[in-house]
Amino acid sequence: MTRTALVTGAAGFIGSALIRALASAGYRVHGLDRAAPDDALRARVSHWSVGDLSQDLPPDLPAADEVYHCAGSGMVGPSFSDPAADFRANVATTANLVAWVAKQRGARLVLVSSAAVYGIQPVMPIGEMAPLNPTSPYGVHKRLAERQVRDYARNFDFNAAVVRLFSVYGPGLRKQLLWDACTKLTQGAPSFGGSGSEERDWIQVDDAVALLIQAVAAATPACPTFNGGTGVSTTVRQALELLARKLGQAAPLRFSGETRRGDPRALVASVAAAHAIGWVPQISLADGISQYAEWFRSAGR
Amino acid sequence: MTRTALVTGAAGFIGSALIRALASAGYRVHGLDRAAPDDALRARVSHWSVGDLSQDLPPDLPAADEVYHCAGSGMVGPSFSDPAADFRANVATTANLVAWVAKQRGARLVLVSSAAVYGIQPVMPIGEMAPLNPTSPYGVHKRLAERQVRDYARNFDFNAAVVRLFSVYGPGLRKQLLWDACTKLTQGAPSFGGSGSEERDWIQVDDAVALLIQAVAAATPACPTFNGGTGVSTTVRQALELLARKLGQAAPLRFSGETRRGDPRALVASVAAAHAIGWVPQISLADGISQYAEWFRSAGR
Repeated sequence: MTRTALVTGAAGFIGSALIRALASAGYRVHGLDRAAPDDALRARVSHWSVGDLSQDLPPDLPAADEVYHCAGSGMVGPSFSDPAADFRANVATTANLVAWVAKQRGARLVLVSSAAVYGIQPVMPIGEMAPLNPTSPYGVHKRLAERQVRDYARNFDFNAAVVRLFSVYGPGLRKQLLWDACTKLTQGAPSFGGSGSEERDWIQVDDAVALLIQAVAAATPACPTFNGGTGVSTTVRQALELLARKLGQAAPLRFSGETRRGDPRALVASVAAAHAIGWVPQISLADGISQYAEWFRSAGR
Repeated sequence: MTRTALVTGAAGFIGSALIRALASAGYRVHGLDRAAPDDALRARVSHWSVGDLSQDLPPDLPAADEVYHCAGSGMVGPSFSDPAADFRANVATTANLVAWVAKQRGARLVLVSSAAVYGIQPVMPIGEMAPLNPTSPYGVHKRLAERQVRDYARNFDFNAAVVRLFSVYGPGLRKQLLWDACTKLTQGAPSFGGSGSEERDWIQVDDAVALLIQAVAAATPACPTFNGGTGVSTTVRQALELLARKLGQAAPLRFSGETRRGDPRALVASVAAAHAIGWVPQISLADGISQYAEWFRSAGR
C-alpha cells in the first residue's frame, strides 16, 4: 500500500529535499507551506496546502501516515532580534501540528530539531542525553518544540521521534554560513565573523533526509531522539577553505575573532543512536562541498 | 519611588485579585487583558490595554518594574478538547511577553504556573524539584511556559520567578470545582465526577497573590520556583462537604467514581521554598470556604 506523508515547511531547504526523496521512494506526498510550490516540487506532490501553520491548520489537510515537521526558522541570528517571530515559526507551528496529529489515527510524527538545543557543552561529541543548554531564542524554541512533541506523544499515545540536525548543507541552501560564504568568496571579500576555529559537524541534506525517514520508522510514544550529524568535527576555517578551493578562490580567509551571539564554540554529534537504527551518512564533506559549489555556480546565485 | 506593575490576564480571577493587592500597596498598576475592566478594576489601575497577548503586545504598553503574567487558561478539561487554544492562552502569550521583558531594562517577571505541571507524582507533598510529569495539555503548556521564562531569563539576564499555584479559590472564582459545586449544591443536585478521595491543596486567592508579590522580590536570572499551596491535604469530599455546610445544603454528596481525564489522584504542595522567602498563608480553608460561600450567595450567582 502506498504510504502517505505530510511535509510541513515543504518549500524550504530541508522540506523540498525530503519531498524529492519521499516521491522517489514511492510515497504519496502532501506539502504544507506558507509559499506555493515551484514547478519541480508541484510535480512531486499529490496535494499542496498554502497556509500559515503558526496560525492554524488548513481545513483541507488530508490524513497522513507519516508527518514530517520541517517548518521552522532555521536561523540563530534573527532569533535575537525578533524572538517572537522565531517562536511562532518553531513553537506555535508545532503546537497546531501536534494537536492535529493527536486526533489522527496512527499517524507517526518526526520533528526536525537542531543541535542549537545543546548550546554550550563541555564534552564533544555530544550525546542525545546531554543536559540541554541552549544559548539563543532559536535553541530555546527548538527545545520547547521537542518538549511539546514528547509530551503530546505520551499523553495522546502516538508514535513520534525527534531528529536534532547539526550543520545541514547542500544544493538549495540559500541561508547560513556556507551560503553567505559562496557569495562573499565569489565577490572576493572573504571576511567572516567568529574565529574560524569553531568546530561544526556538517551533514549533507540528502543524508539528513534519509535519517528523517529512518527516524519515522523508529518512532514510539516515548519519542526517541537522534542526532543528525556525521560525528566528524570540522572547523569553520577548514570548511570554508574547502569551499573556496572548489569555487576556485585563492584569497586568504579573514576572521573577525569576535564570537557571534548564540554561537557555541563546538557542536559535534555523537551518532551512535542513528547508527543503531541503521542510518549511516553516505556523503563525505569533500564531495558534498564540491557538489554545493557546483550548484552555486550553476543555479544558486 | 512608586513601583509600577504590569498585570496580564488583568480581568481574570487571579489578575484582578492581584490588582486589588498591588493598588492597596501603593503600586502604579497597568492591566492587560482581552477584556475591558469593570468599574472596580478601572478605579485601581492607571492604564489598561485591551489586546490579545497571544497574538502580539499592544503598542501602547508602558514600561514596568514588575511584570505579573497571570494570563492563561486555568482549565484542565477544555485543554483536551482544544489543545491549540490552550497553547495560545498559556504558551504563545508567554512567548510575546518574555520577548518584551527581555528588551526592558531591569524589569522583573513572575509567571503564574500550576501544580498541573507535576501531574501524577509518587510522593506527597510535592517539592519543586520533583520530575515533572504533566498529564494534560494544560499541564504540558504550563511547563513550556516555565521553560520559556527560565531560558529567556538566563539568556537575556533578567530577574524572573515561577509560582506553581495549587487549587486557588476565593471570591470572584467563576470556574472549576468549587464554583461548579456552588451551583450544583444550591440547585439540589450534588453529583460530582471523580471519587471524592482526590487530595488537593487549596489556597485562598489573597494568599496566592501575596506569594506572587513575594516571588517577584525573590526573582533572579536563575529563575527560582515556588509552590503556591498550604501544605495541607484536603480531599475533594471534605472540601465540598465544608462548602455544602456553609451554603446550608444538607443533601448527601454523590461521586461518579470515574476519574476525570488529566486529574491526578493527589496534588499537595511542599511549601518550604515559599516559607524561606517569608511567605506564610494566612487564611484557613474553613474561613476561606465560608467567605467564598458568602460571596456566592451575595454576588456570585
